[in-house]
Amino acid sequence: MEHHTGHPQPLSEIVATVYRDIAPHFSRGRVAHYIPALARIDPRHFGISVITCAGEVATAGDSEVPFSIQSVSKVFTLTMALEKLGGRLWHRVGHEPSGSAFNSIVQLEQEKGIPRNPLINAGALAVTDALLGGGEPEALIVRITDFMRGLAADPTVSVDQEVAVSEGDTGFRNASLANFLRASGNLHSAVADVLQVYFNQCALHMNCRQLARAGLYLANAGVDPLNRARITTHTRARRINAIMMTCGHYDASGDVAFRIGLPGKSGVGGGILAIAPGRAAIAVWSPGLNEAGTSLVGQMALERLAALTGWSVF
Amino acid sequence: MEHHTGHPQPLSEIVATVYRDIAPHFSRGRVAHYIPALARIDPRHFGISVITCAGEVATAGDSEVPFSIQSVSKVFTLTMALEKLGGRLWHRVGHEPSGSAFNSIVQLEQEKGIPRNPLINAGALAVTDALLGGGEPEALIVRITDFMRGLAADPTVSVDQEVAVSEGDTGFRNASLANFLRASGNLHSAVADVLQVYFNQCALHMNCRQLARAGLYLANAGVDPLNRARITTHTRARRINAIMMTCGHYDASGDVAFRIGLPGKSGVGGGILAIAPGRAAIAVWSPGLNEAGTSLVGQMALERLAALTGWSVF
Amino acid sequence: MEHHTGHPQPLSEIVATVYRDIAPHFSRGRVAHYIPALARIDPRHFGISVITCAGEVATAGDSEVPFSIQSVSKVFTLTMALEKLGGRLWHRVGHEPSGSAFNSIVQLEQEKGIPRNPLINAGALAVTDALLGGGEPEALIVRITDFMRGLAADPTVSVDQEVAVSEGDTGFRNASLANFLRASGNLHSAVADVLQVYFNQCALHMNCRQLARAGLYLANAGVDPLNRARITTHTRARRINAIMMTCGHYDASGDVAFRIGLPGKSGVGGGILAIAPGRAAIAVWSPGLNEAGTSLVGQMALERLAALTGWSVF
Amino acid sequence: MEHHTGHPQPLSEIVATVYRDIAPHFSRGRVAHYIPALARIDPRHFGISVITCAGEVATAGDSEVPFSIQSVSKVFTLTMALEKLGGRLWHRVGHEPSGSAFNSIVQLEQEKGIPRNPLINAGALAVTDALLGGGEPEALIVRITDFMRGLAADPTVSVDQEVAVSEGDTGFRNASLANFLRASGNLHSAVADVLQVYFNQCALHMNCRQLARAGLYLANAGVDPLNRARITTHTRARRINAIMMTCGHYDASGDVAFRIGLPGKSGVGGGILAIAPGRAAIAVWSPGLNEAGTSLVGQMALERLAALTGWSVF
Repeated sequence: MEHHTGHPQPLSEIVATVYRDIAPHFSRGRVAHYIPALARIDPRHFGISVITCAGEVATAGDSEVPFSIQSVSKVFTLTMALEKLGGRLWHRVGHEPSGSAFNSIVQLEQEKGIPRNPLINAGALAVTDALLGGGEPEALIVRITDFMRGLAADPTVSVDQEVAVSEGDTGFRNASLANFLRASGNLHSAVADVLQVYFNQCALHMNCRQLARAGLYLANAGVDPLNRARITTHTRARRINAIMMTCGHYDASGDVAFRIGLPGKSGVGGGILAIAPGRAAIAVWSPGLNEAGTSLVGQMALERLAALTGWSVF
Repeated sequence: MEHHTGHPQPLSEIVATVYRDIAPHFSRGRVAHYIPALARIDPRHFGISVITCAGEVATAGDSEVPFSIQSVSKVFTLTMALEKLGGRLWHRVGHEPSGSAFNSIVQLEQEKGIPRNPLINAGALAVTDALLGGGEPEALIVRITDFMRGLAADPTVSVDQEVAVSEGDTGFRNASLANFLRASGNLHSAVADVLQVYFNQCALHMNCRQLARAGLYLANAGVDPLNRARITTHTRARRINAIMMTCGHYDASGDVAFRIGLPGKSGVGGGILAIAPGRAAIAVWSPGLNEAGTSLVGQMALERLAALTGWSVF
Repeated sequence: MEHHTGHPQPLSEIVATVYRDIAPHFSRGRVAHYIPALARIDPRHFGISVITCAGEVATAGDSEVPFSIQSVSKVFTLTMALEKLGGRLWHRVGHEPSGSAFNSIVQLEQEKGIPRNPLINAGALAVTDALLGGGEPEALIVRITDFMRGLAADPTVSVDQEVAVSEGDTGFRNASLANFLRASGNLHSAVADVLQVYFNQCALHMNCRQLARAGLYLANAGVDPLNRARITTHTRARRINAIMMTCGHYDASGDVAFRIGLPGKSGVGGGILAIAPGRAAIAVWSPGLNEAGTSLVGQMALERLAALTGWSVF
Repeated sequence: MEHHTGHPQPLSEIVATVYRDIAPHFSRGRVAHYIPALARIDPRHFGISVITCAGEVATAGDSEVPFSIQSVSKVFTLTMALEKLGGRLWHRVGHEPSGSAFNSIVQLEQEKGIPRNPLINAGALAVTDALLGGGEPEALIVRITDFMRGLAADPTVSVDQEVAVSEGDTGFRNASLANFLRASGNLHSAVADVLQVYFNQCALHMNCRQLARAGLYLANAGVDPLNRARITTHTRARRINAIMMTCGHYDASGDVAFRIGLPGKSGVGGGILAIAPGRAAIAVWSPGLNEAGTSLVGQMALERLAALTGWSVF
């Protein structure tokens, strides 16, 4: 497969081609089973939404069907925490790939409670704790939701309470990580409060159109190009993209860089946010996961899109 | 520090600015001490050479002083091995960041002799073995040297025999890795032959001008833009860049992506090759290393250059 | 230092010699600081009690001062669980030394939630869960306390509620382990219930006389030699002793076997129970710990006692 | 299964019973395949020899057929090194169980080149290097062979050259470990010299009668009870026994302590030496190995013998 450079074709045609090429694979992969409320999702769903810095939008499939963004939320809480703490955040969490699975606790023990990066569960829990700062979890959940509504330019974005509670019942691995962080002195609020916020941010319910729109500032130097709001600095936007490139897909991050070449973050709900710096934000969704916990068909769609557009940063 | 986008300034002025800004730091870091022939290098050296896809060259400092490229050679043997084996190479070596030091053997044991990526020592040994294919080590050393001469467009590139022999005397960690690979069935030639080639490729003696020129195909979709020679496919060039981004600086790769945002590969001789895809190849050299084994001043220079040019891929 | 074989000296004289030889070292080591209620203990305490299978008792120092037995309780809950489940217990916990610290979670992740042995924290939590079997934690705490009272032949044995609650406040590492076990399917009761029992069993408050008496069945083939009660089978008593020998002192178990040569179990309260099979049970107590979390002076006393009695099993 | 205490039965009858009970299992397990010269051994062999401190001998099966003692040799080189270096040996090798496989290199990296104990391959290589001390490998091989002839009271003990050379061809994992030790500064002689001695000591060719006789000093406080030669001090004999108990069967040492309760050391040739302190030395041999690399039928025989004699130290 050879790549095109540039995209003489209209974006809508490219997205239609991606959809057509990927369609035979719909329903492949395995729906996340360890969160009951997610296990019932129909695996045949597939949605894609691309929005350029110029505001052009192209979508296909179930781009209006909301799904649980799960770990994709880590990108947005990271942005909030960088705005709140600046570089001090890096005393509590690293920015190196972990070489381990998303919920590994081994690295945490070996490195004395400093998670390798903010996109693995342990790191995201530390980030959420940094945002919480001993405050009320409910208030932070509202702040995160409002932040997402603003970014998505859509006030209907909300948390799926059934999923949030479902997480709460089954999230023993996350409770293990949070208690470990607390034992290491790297979690300052009550464990239950941090977990409450974390389970709620993971349960944000968004569709591909909303998610791509929400991530657009990362493609545009930290500024929402459509309403000119500065979300973060150019440097921070670049750094968030860098972290997504090296760490966004857990122990398969190298493979995604290798195949697709775009910074991105996946969630076990089947959603992936990818950024083409200077060009566009892309959200894909398909519930069936590969072994690394990333949407199998979603990743295929991104690989095809990157090939057709030449948007790989490499 | 804010980044410029684009570079209205002439490249030569930018490089001069980088040199001037970095000069106060010359001689910082610690010269590699475990290879005797390298331990004697004057730590005050600093060189930089930038070459664009259009052939523009800008240099500063000791850009004509040759140094031992060491692990930077892994990028070039990887290119050769991909041309020889294609995708079959990935049965023998992964393309994921390791989360470990450059010479770690832990990961190798846990993953049954398949090195995480071709830019750590174990992976590079497997790549060299793939190139050797049971043949004569001397012949492969000649082939690698010729490949580098062609890429650098300079027939004077050669191996520093003193360094090659010096490696041979002290390279017990590499001998340990090679024997481990052999025990795992992932090294087919004689251990001593693979090590001989490996120590010679690491001892390639090049200056910044030559090294930047040699890497230019990676900035130009696999084709040398100055003589139109296709070195590798566009897809492979992208993938090599992706691997450099996620794995090029061992357990500090995430930090380099975060600070600089360019694919690159460092060597303990103090050299770094960085690629700005579509734009330029950059070689910097300064012998003092940081804790991760990468040139401390060289990395500062790249960070400054990336800030001034806006060449970060993110 | 040469060892005597047999002990022509009366036991009381030997114990007096041990006390005199060890006295210059009283208050060495570091009192456990991570459980507030234990951090206040006077480090100068030292007690020893030896009871033979024939019922001879020799004591010295603070042998009547109660202390928190902490992890020594794991030996007794292991005995109870073996009586309840028999060999099925070994499906949930191994009997191999871990090579890791007492509260390590690394091994647990690598071996999919099966703790290496019942004398590290993770293993003891699985054992307590096996005893709990979904029942009421209060009822199990009563059962454990009654079991200890029976073994010690002393109805005054009880749980120090302040210590139990103190554990509850600071035991985040144990909460992390328990949640990890639950996530791995190797904890069936509610995490909070298991932790409640665990913190209470660790807070059992006993003196050296009571503790030595309680362990006497392990020196006598599973039968209390003084009241002829069979506590466990001969085979199980041997196996518990074997586990104490290979795993009783976490990552210093080999050193204790090497220096002392008796099966034993230490707790961070400074107590150690040691068994001389066929001969005697020994309890020592001194609050200052060595780096491995075992009573520093207590271990010296056992080494001296073993040398003077020739009781080493080796 | 209940254990007898003491052995009213004559030893010869007990050994005959063990043989009869174990016979149905002959040829179970898997012969070591990675040393070609061992892979051809008939798996149906079984031999046992017991020798008491009083000089009583009982044998059954192929007790006169020589086999390759392999790692059992580590016990004897450890004895030699303790006599040569005394406690200084423990600066170069620990005495803790490793929790890892016999040839693991992970622990070595994590603990900076200090092997956990002298009975894993890395530790035995350091011990052999300590004995070699930069001298001639041939001379040390002669010294080791002479030591074994003296212990076995049999001048015909010798090294099987075919096995020694066979090791030399396939021992890449050991070459990896030795090079790693050298890189860590914990191997002072030439790697090839240490490996030469190591492969020769492993290739010692002995039968059960000779091996049990050779180990008898460990059952008798360091003194050969039949010729009154002091081989080592009482304390060192105890410590060697302690190390065999906690570390003698790699990551199955706990299970052997649990089932058999005697210090012992196994080799991949199918031999096991076990010590009943104060009573007897036992050698068993059967080539088929279990998953931990220990003789499957040999271990069954020891478990049966321990049950019938009550010789468990626990």
